[in-house]
Formats: sequence, structure tokens, C-alpha cells
Amino acid sequence: MTEFELIQKYFAAQPVSRDDVVLGIGDDAAVLAPPAGKHLVVTTDSMIEGVHFTPETEPESLGYRALAVNLSDLAAMGAEPAWFFLNLTLPKIDETWVEAFCRGMFSLAREFNVQLVGGNTTRGSLSITIEAQGLISEGEAIRRAGAKPGDGIYVTGTLGDAALALRHRLGRHSLPVADYDVLKPRLDRPTPRVREGMALRRIASSAIDVSDGLLADLGHIAEASGVGALVVRDHVPLSETYRRHLHEVGWDHALSGGDDYELLFTAPAHAGRDLQRLLTRFGVGISQIGEMVSGDGVTVIDTAGNPYRPATRGHDHFA
Amino acid sequence: MTEFELIQKYFAAQPVSRDDVVLGIGDDAAVLAPPAGKHLVVTTDSMIEGVHFTPETEPESLGYRALAVNLSDLAAMGAEPAWFFLNLTLPKIDETWVEAFCRGMFSLAREFNVQLVGGNTTRGSLSITIEAQGLISEGEAIRRAGAKPGDGIYVTGTLGDAALALRHRLGRHSLPVADYDVLKPRLDRPTPRVREGMALRRIASSAIDVSDGLLADLGHIAEASGVGALVVRDHVPLSETYRRHLHEVGWDHALSGGDDYELLFTAPAHAGRDLQRLLTRFGVGISQIGEMVSGDGVTVIDTAGNPYRPATRGHDHFA
Repeated sequence: MTEFELIQKYFAAQPVSRDDVVLGIGDDAAVLAPPAGKHLVVTTDSMIEGVHFTPETEPESLGYRALAVNLSDLAAMGAEPAWFFLNLTLPKIDETWVEAFCRGMFSLAREFNVQLVGGNTTRGSLSITIEAQGLISEGEAIRRAGAKPGDGIYVTGTLGDAALALRHRLGRHSLPVADYDVLKPRLDRPTPRVREGMALRRIASSAIDVSDGLLADLGHIAEASGVGALVVRDHVPLSETYRRHLHEVGWDHALSGGDDYELLFTAPAHAGRDLQRLLTRFGVGISQIGEMVSGDGVTVIDTAGNPYRPATRGHDHFA
Repeated sequence: MTEFELIQKYFAAQPVSRDDVVLGIGDDAAVLAPPAGKHLVVTTDSMIEGVHFTPETEPESLGYRALAVNLSDLAAMGAEPAWFFLNLTLPKIDETWVEAFCRGMFSLAREFNVQLVGGNTTRGSLSITIEAQGLISEGEAIRRAGAKPGDGIYVTGTLGDAALALRHRLGRHSLPVADYDVLKPRLDRPTPRVREGMALRRIASSAIDVSDGLLADLGHIAEASGVGALVVRDHVPLSETYRRHLHEVGWDHALSGGDDYELLFTAPAHAGRDLQRLLTRFGVGISQIGEMVSGDGVTVIDTAGNPYRPATRGHDHFA
């Protein structure tokens, strides 16, 4: 099977069909028609074997996750996903692998009506780069800058589950099978909070998705906004499963673990009622974990008000 | 130096400033404002060490070339470049390398007023993925489909120089130093034919850029258009340097070598005068090399009208 046949069979046959795609896969470039008055929101993210995932990760999960992390970035801006591009580097053509990869990727693409419109495949060590584009009305994109002292700090869902699953996979902590089964999808198939991000457009004063870790990502918001952040450690939402292991694994996976792809955002105090409405509209919980303050940096305290210092604050690919 | 510092120092400081960039590097995604009535033209291409370039290629050339091959795809659609994204995978942070890489990339970005607005850096074996976006008025994108029997087949510049330089670099043919010096930039710093592509908008019936090789790329046009192509081998434009080595290296590097990034296009016979005007407007030559015919496939003949069969027809990364 050649590169062209691979593209034809697995990628050109992608399942989503949008009216705003003038020309999809198969020419020198895609041609897209953004609606009048809309701004484009564009992001790109790579996943490299051995850096972002272990060799035993199932291809179906890789396909899903590669798209999910990009949709998560769009969600953090409040954008509605529209189109995406895939650059796939493969050691060899393995049709079983590619088929499973596409199954994972396209299941998510279908869910959010986002169409694969281009990309390319190359030979090399396994890596996946996706570039996703979304749409938003002028002036409505939620930035990292915008948080003000007094704004509440909120997070969707629960944190630390992905990090705990990874720790188990790397053999650094042994979880009971039933617990790993619960946490594994949180690592391999994170749910991008696209609907929640869109709903936060006129509510949140700033937003980011939790990819590097809560404290690191909150640090990005604080720095971009020119303010500080105060987090109450025990208000950070944990899953039931994480909580059962809390005494052995501690808070740090939830505070600094990364890979959760929940939305972290700030909102002024008067937004409380809107947030309450959001909470009932979507299945996912929203927890207040602290407050933006004047100054800079991110401070963590426990419920007694004592400072808490996590062992690590986030992820740097070159560290 | 961390990933964040690297991005800040070398990429966020990029030199182009466009009014239609609402939000560039530094948030979860870029926000871009395409002008009303314009369609987006989007392409992406990867360069992997050991596949698309040899380890001794200078970083400045890599930076230039990675952007050039993407702008070349936009040129083949007739689009005006606007913004680009960079995904860079590096074995380690080497500031000297990154600085030279950026110098090459941004020299071209400046030339075509295309702004770096996002991307990411990761640790891994060296690979470069760029995604470039351009703008075009509705209905004006030049597609691969559109060639008709009787249309002339044209190519800009000369073909085979990049392949000959590569052959020398790989030690398969030894060129005199002076000749290699002339051909080397054709491999490392190909000129994307952006202005020529834009000028061809209402002239060309189809277009593609020569990346896989003349015959392979002409095959794409023929197939997409549902017609055949007849090429007169001796009309394929060669540089003076290539021509001096023609008796040893033959025609095949020009016919199938790839990496030339010239524009290959078709135009109806009545477009002759417009093409003449183009020829004088831009420094680069335009040569007619054959004619589209009914049927399918690409046939090559020599000046005597005898069929000519090249040893290879193009490039497949997995072959």
C-alpha cells in the first residue's frame, strides 16, 4: 500500500461533511469558507511516542487523544470546532494500526462535527500532529489574560486522574485493576470540554485547559493577567477513585499532574448564578478552587490556611 | 533554557505584524480575522530528518525550506499567504541551531508578509511541521481538477536542479564544486512561486507544485481532471548547469526528481498572451512542455516523437 492509497482509503473517506468546506482532502491545500463576521481560532499540538505516550498505548486511543487535546485548546478559547489537519509520521504502513487510529479519531470528530480536510503522512518514528480550527464571533474569544483580583477560580470535572493512571502504567504506583480501569480512559480518552467552553463565552474572565498541570496552567493565567492566584488545596476536585488513594499518592498529581484536559477558568463573583445554570446544563461538575488576588504567582494553602508546597509545579518537555 | 523561554525568545519575537492577527503566540490558540468574502486556503507539510533532509543540512536552510514548501502549496492554489504555525521536535535545546533555523524561516516570512501565530516545541528526533494559511477570493482557487484536452502544460523555472544537488550530496554523482554551489540553493532554499501563483488565478485551468516530481505531479493533475497528458521530454526546461551534465545524468532527475517547487499548470490555448505578460512581469521563465489530451495517464515523447520511459516516476515516502 502506497502513501496515496493510505490517504485515499483511510483519510479521504473521513465521516464528517460540513457545508463550509469548499475543497477538502486531495488538492495542494484545503479551501474553507468561514462565515462572515466570524474569527478563526487555530491551535496545533503534537504527540510523540516516548514523550507524550508509551508504546503500548492503543492506536484507537492515540487517534482519539490527538484530536481531543486540540479540541481542548479550542474549548479553552470558547470556540466552536470546525476543521482539522493531520500530520502522521509512521515507521511503516500497518493497516490494522491505521484503521484503529482512525476509528478513535473519527469517533470524536463525529461527536463535535469537525471535518478532517488535509494533512500528510510520512515515514519516521511515530508522531502525530493535529492542527484544529474553530470559529467564534468577533471579541468573544476567552483569553488567558483577563482575570482580576476577586475573580473566583473554577475547574470542570476532577483533576489528577490521568496522572494517576500514567503513574500506574509506568509502574511507579500499583492500582487495583478495577481502579485502573476507571482512570485509564481519563488518560487515553480525555473529554474536551467543548460545549462548556462555548457556554463560558460571556461568563469567564479568562480560561485555559489543564494540560501542563493545574498550578502551571493557573500560573499562565496569573502571569498573562498580571495578578496572583490563591488555591485552597482541599477544594481541588478529586474523583472518588483518586480520593480512595489520596493518603498514599497525596495531592500533587491533582495539583501538578497535567493531561486532565479540564477547563480552568476565572469568573467575577457576580457570575455565580450563570455558573449554577451551567452546572445543571452539562453533566460535568464545576468547582471553585480559589480566588485571584493582587500580586503575582500561585499560592496553595490547605484548609487550615497553612501554605502547601507541591514537589513539582508542572511539565516542561525539555526538563 | 525551558520550552517556554525558547518560545518567548525565538518564536514570540517573530518579525511580521499583520492587522488581521487578533491574537498571536502565547494563548491556547491564535485568533485570526479573515477579511469578509475571502476563503481560507490551508496546507501542512512535515520535514523529517533522514527522510526529507540529511543531518548535515544547515539549520538556516531547514527553517527556510520548511516554510517554503508550505508557501509553495499555497502558491499552487493561487492564494496569498497570511499566517503560519510551527511544530518543532528537537532532540535538545541548542540555541545556536534554533537561532539559525529562525533566521532562515523568518527571512522568507518577511519576504511574503506571513506571520507566525502559533505552534509548539517538543523533545524528540528532529522534525519540522508547518501549517500555512492563505487567503483567496471566493471561486478563485486553482485546483488540480480543471485541465481540458488541448490545454497547454506549463512549468515555471527549471526542473531537476534540486535532485541533482541531492544526488551529489548523497555521493551518487560527483559535481564540480562550482556547479554544486549553483545547484545547492535550489535544494535547500527553493523559491516558492507565490506571486506567479497569484497572477495565474484567472489564467490557469489547473495547477500543482512540483514536489514529488514532474511526472508524478502531472499525473495528479491528469487524474483529478480526468484527462491525459503528453510531455515532450526535450521541452522540459533545464538550467545551464543541469544541461552541462545532461549526457551523464540523463533526463530523469528533471522528469521525476521532485523537490523543485516550481509551479506546474495548464492553461487554455487562448491564454498565450496573458502568459507572455506574466513572463515579462516576473523574473522566472515559463515554458510550455506539452499538452493535455483525451484519455488518461502521462506520456513522454522525445523530439522525434518516440516514447520515452523514465526509470522512476516519482516519490512515495513508504516505498
